[in-house]
Amino acid sequence: MKIAQRELRVSTRSRTEMVDVTGQVEAAVREAGVQDGDVIVFCPHTTAGITINENADPDVVHDVLLALDEAVPRSNSRFRHAEGNSDAHTKSSLVGCSEQVLIREGRLVLGTWQAVYFCEFDGPRSRHVIVQVRGE
Amino acid sequence: MKIAQRELRVSTRSRTEMVDVTGQVEAAVREAGVQDGDVIVFCPHTTAGITINENADPDVVHDVLLALDEAVPRSNSRFRHAEGNSDAHTKSSLVGCSEQVLIREGRLVLGTWQAVYFCEFDGPRSRHVIVQVRGE
Amino acid sequence: MKIAQRELRVSTRSRTEMVDVTGQVEAAVREAGVQDGDVIVFCPHTTAGITINENADPDVVHDVLLALDEAVPRSNSRFRHAEGNSDAHTKSSLVGCSEQVLIREGRLVLGTWQAVYFCEFDGPRSRHVIVQVRGE
Repeated sequence: MKIAQRELRVSTRSRTEMVDVTGQVEAAVREAGVQDGDVIVFCPHTTAGITINENADPDVVHDVLLALDEAVPRSNSRFRHAEGNSDAHTKSSLVGCSEQVLIREGRLVLGTWQAVYFCEFDGPRSRHVIVQVRGE
Repeated sequence: MKIAQRELRVSTRSRTEMVDVTGQVEAAVREAGVQDGDVIVFCPHTTAGITINENADPDVVHDVLLALDEAVPRSNSRFRHAEGNSDAHTKSSLVGCSEQVLIREGRLVLGTWQAVYFCEFDGPRSRHVIVQVRGE
Repeated sequence: MKIAQRELRVSTRSRTEMVDVTGQVEAAVREAGVQDGDVIVFCPHTTAGITINENADPDVVHDVLLALDEAVPRSNSRFRHAEGNSDAHTKSSLVGCSEQVLIREGRLVLGTWQAVYFCEFDGPRSRHVIVQVRGE
């Protein structure tokens, strides 16, 4: 079994943003030469995350970020953390810091509308993402 | 190491619903003949997800779906996506589109009350779930 | 490829609490002698979960638990489950019952501020966590 790790760079431009990294993950899979297996996409930051969602209509991303803002408001008089980004930490734990995608015949097994997104919750920042490809 | 993929079919009957797929996942593990390893249960849809929760009292599922509805209301005048299912996309990212379960001595390593659920957030629809069994 | 499973014990002291288990996960990785691979940290309970978040300022944990309480209030007249812990079941599905962390050169690949937490949502209780280390 092969195990290959690779690091991606992501630059975000707003406080909250979802950046489609599917193409970079696909490139890592091709480079690793794995035909059957899986890939883990891991975010090493605590105010960001990784998710899979629709990439057809950009309004979906807008609405997902909006719904997260409303479920976890940035301003909360009971928050104690001095950096003022406790909402971002909470969203990170809700969305999660990694996703796994299966690989079949050298390609990502994703649904028609699925893309892998890096989720920025406290940007803009320069971020990185770790990709591990495993398989045969 | 063995890697076996299999596709399950799930038909949902309501807009939101949690369908217990544990038996089908167990069947895939038996068929793959894996004794030690893990199984990934992946949902290729962007308005649905996979979770693990209690299967003893059906009221738990009712309450989880209700609490998600209240945390992410369907109706929001600021949503832009024309299909009117942005709540479902958001729940998909919150609950997540996959779960992994360990396998020991050919059986799923689940707690006493745990079951694997397909979560429908924009049904009723005909859906599918991808199961990958890995191990030895 | 090696696969090693191990069980950790966690005792919680409040209804909601996040317990840093990073050191115990690192010990399991060392014991398994895996240099490259990954570790799955799995919670076999339906009113608890596993997440990765900041371990530098304890106020972050306070604020994450508070924001979860507000997004999913404990008291809800429409909840049906008689045990009164439907909020805990919901948080379990939102945060998720497992995390995966990559291993490189025998060490966990975590960001500077990241720690692995057991999340108690219905304590205090005596809990356990299953750790599976895989790799070479």
